[in-house]
Amino acid sequence: MFKKTLLAVSLAATSSYAFAVENVDLLIKNAQVLTMDKDKTVFDHGLVAIKGNKIVAVTDGSDIKEYQSAKTIDADGDIVMPGLINTHTHVSMTVFRSLADDVPDRLHRYIFPLEKKLVSRDMVRIGAQLGNVEMLKGGVTTYADMYYFEDEVAKTVDQIGMRAVLGETIIKFPVASAATPEDGIKYTLNFIEQYKDHPRITPAFAPHGPYTNTTEILQKITELSLKHDVPVMTHLAESERENQVIAERSGGLSPIKYMESIGALTPNFVGAHVINANDEDIQILKKHDVGVAHNMSANIKSAKGVAPAMKMFDEGLRIGLGTDGPMSGNTLSTIDEFNQVAKVHKLVNKDRAAMPPKNVIEMATIGAARALHMEDKIGSLEVGKLADVIVVDTKAPNMVPVYNPYSALVYSAYATNVKHAIVDGKLLMENRDVLTVDEEKIRIEAQKYADTVRKTVIESGEIVQ
Amino acid sequence: MFKKTLLAVSLAATSSYAFAVENVDLLIKNAQVLTMDKDKTVFDHGLVAIKGNKIVAVTDGSDIKEYQSAKTIDADGDIVMPGLINTHTHVSMTVFRSLADDVPDRLHRYIFPLEKKLVSRDMVRIGAQLGNVEMLKGGVTTYADMYYFEDEVAKTVDQIGMRAVLGETIIKFPVASAATPEDGIKYTLNFIEQYKDHPRITPAFAPHGPYTNTTEILQKITELSLKHDVPVMTHLAESERENQVIAERSGGLSPIKYMESIGALTPNFVGAHVINANDEDIQILKKHDVGVAHNMSANIKSAKGVAPAMKMFDEGLRIGLGTDGPMSGNTLSTIDEFNQVAKVHKLVNKDRAAMPPKNVIEMATIGAARALHMEDKIGSLEVGKLADVIVVDTKAPNMVPVYNPYSALVYSAYATNVKHAIVDGKLLMENRDVLTVDEEKIRIEAQKYADTVRKTVIESGEIVQ
Repeated sequence: MFKKTLLAVSLAATSSYAFAVENVDLLIKNAQVLTMDKDKTVFDHGLVAIKGNKIVAVTDGSDIKEYQSAKTIDADGDIVMPGLINTHTHVSMTVFRSLADDVPDRLHRYIFPLEKKLVSRDMVRIGAQLGNVEMLKGGVTTYADMYYFEDEVAKTVDQIGMRAVLGETIIKFPVASAATPEDGIKYTLNFIEQYKDHPRITPAFAPHGPYTNTTEILQKITELSLKHDVPVMTHLAESERENQVIAERSGGLSPIKYMESIGALTPNFVGAHVINANDEDIQILKKHDVGVAHNMSANIKSAKGVAPAMKMFDEGLRIGLGTDGPMSGNTLSTIDEFNQVAKVHKLVNKDRAAMPPKNVIEMATIGAARALHMEDKIGSLEVGKLADVIVVDTKAPNMVPVYNPYSALVYSAYATNVKHAIVDGKLLMENRDVLTVDEEKIRIEAQKYADTVRKTVIESGEIVQ
Repeated sequence: MFKKTLLAVSLAATSSYAFAVENVDLLIKNAQVLTMDKDKTVFDHGLVAIKGNKIVAVTDGSDIKEYQSAKTIDADGDIVMPGLINTHTHVSMTVFRSLADDVPDRLHRYIFPLEKKLVSRDMVRIGAQLGNVEMLKGGVTTYADMYYFEDEVAKTVDQIGMRAVLGETIIKFPVASAATPEDGIKYTLNFIEQYKDHPRITPAFAPHGPYTNTTEILQKITELSLKHDVPVMTHLAESERENQVIAERSGGLSPIKYMESIGALTPNFVGAHVINANDEDIQILKKHDVGVAHNMSANIKSAKGVAPAMKMFDEGLRIGLGTDGPMSGNTLSTIDEFNQVAKVHKLVNKDRAAMPPKNVIEMATIGAARALHMEDKIGSLEVGKLADVIVVDTKAPNMVPVYNPYSALVYSAYATNVKHAIVDGKLLMENRDVLTVDEEKIRIEAQKYADTVRKTVIESGEIVQ
């Protein structure tokens, strides 16, 4: 006993002699740190120190002895970077994934009727649980969701420990969570009241689109979003049908100009897709400081085209990557977007230097944070920011060697190369094991629910797969 | 002892009474079997039985009791399908991956000089070992390679147990393995002599391209390939530079028409890329029964465009997916191509029904086998074919649920979802562990070699990353 005390005193004395030791909760060392700060600082053998839910140090690692940590992760040269931010999805739709892919006019002919039959609190919860696990395992630490019964999604996010912006969808026809758009607004206000003080969940309005809501409803939502200071997320400038409906309604305006004309574009606004945007539209989005979710993989799957993301990025718009929902994308980690976004913009612009890997990683991290107006809190590894951090394996055969970490991430990484994930200072995934929820139980529940889907729409002959 | 014998006799008697029991070496049961046979037969709860290096049964599983196997894999509902065939790569270039991506005129300004400095027997071996592991872990059981010192690649393929078509590159300037194209031909003839009877390795000629070889050399190679009945693999109709050089040489012919005019298109021929092909060119390729490697992901990364793969597929050409080399692709499993191939063809054709998942899987299996003129041996799960089989996990969160296996594979699967891989009847990967080589040792050797690359071209300032 005596000896032990003496040793402790002696160690403390030595430490205080050489340098001040800071006690932290989690230390990641020997890391190739991509900070994604303003200067895109990279530390080849750096460290990240976390205390509570905040980042307290990001350094080149030479000061390692100044930190004493309850838990230390030796990254052994792996890439450490900000957690990915998925700016647009419909997470609960995982339970419908691989159903009737590629059918024409799928949303109106197929998805809306399917949802009318099957959306329920259970479906939303089961689908969200599965999607959360998929995203976390793919390095997504924050996501923005639009669906029904978002309070159910919120419970699952709270449980797994991720961060999310959750928007209750408001649409002109009756849906499971609301008989009318007015009811949808009431539902959302209740949801906002319930979650407005949650440390990781931001409740939001999510009017489905300009063409699937009336001007009055869109204006009412804008007003309420400003009053309660919550985001408004909307599908915008996505389809020909939308162009037509809005042009008819507004006397020829583009969806973006129409939204400006009714006062719906505010700094609380996030538009998803934004495919049909000309230079004038882009300037309007910039002027109103709105966010943009770029969901390229889903957009090209439905042959809708490629949004002018390079132009928006170069113009300094708030733009980040999104996957769209699992019936559209079909996977939910933005890592799955990297390769395609980098390559398809090269193809479309006929320029192999277009959309360099660094820009793609920016749109997946700090750019995505800006798109959600959360760049003061997340999106980069900087002192004072919330500790949302991932570690990406650089020893998997597809990742060897790494001459350039941005290039390796964009052109080589799989979602499954994400090894550890930390959200709000808490280690949620370690060595690919999700620590906060029972992954197998979630998977089995989803598979069981899929049997219900099979019975309802496949065995009835409604869908020919 | 007595009791045991009695039991055995009794069991045998019961068995022979009910049905004949066939002894097999490996049985995969409870599988969602995608046979990729002519009718695209799918068994929901099927089995695949393997004896020696051949498939001896592919059934709906109702006859499970008729097989007694030394080893049984319970697929537990997972997808079982033919091993993937990568129709075009340069496997050894893994050691250069993520180096100077996206620089203009990269091949001539950058890659050729880099190779002049660094290609050696060691580099080829180290790179191939790493690439083999990456491919096998991504479900590739057969690949077609073009590089230098292919006898070194052959040794690595022999060791890991995969199947490969290995073409020694012949090019107009001096390279590490040959001072002249004539020496390259001699080198290849030796290689052919050495490997012509190997059960899993097919030696081949690989003239780099029409524009990087003389007419005389191309004709000589064609003649020798017919004499020795070995494949000829060539980059074809890939670039503007090629178009120009060939037009000048031939009085205005397209590369495909030029190759026809000099007699270089034969049923032994496989053309890689084939981006610049009009309807007439496509008919020429069809007429000469040549194979085509479609490497879309690499082609769009270099902004070269999208090959008319849908037209070639619909016209019944021999066309399969390839990744191209790891400096171009940058990963080596054709699973990484699935999503992009399905989606980019939809984009380019402005049709969401274009390039359905089933066609993509066909181009990765039996189509790729046809491209390599090996469809009588591999590419589908059919009795009598060589046993190259993979099992794909359907329980990873990105793969749940599976309403349509083709859709799940194309839009959701990661290379890392491949669980087991069997080549020539032998289990080479089990639960993602490669059984025949030491993966960690290979990775460390590649990382060490990358340090040499860093010293040679990065620290010297030759490359700014």
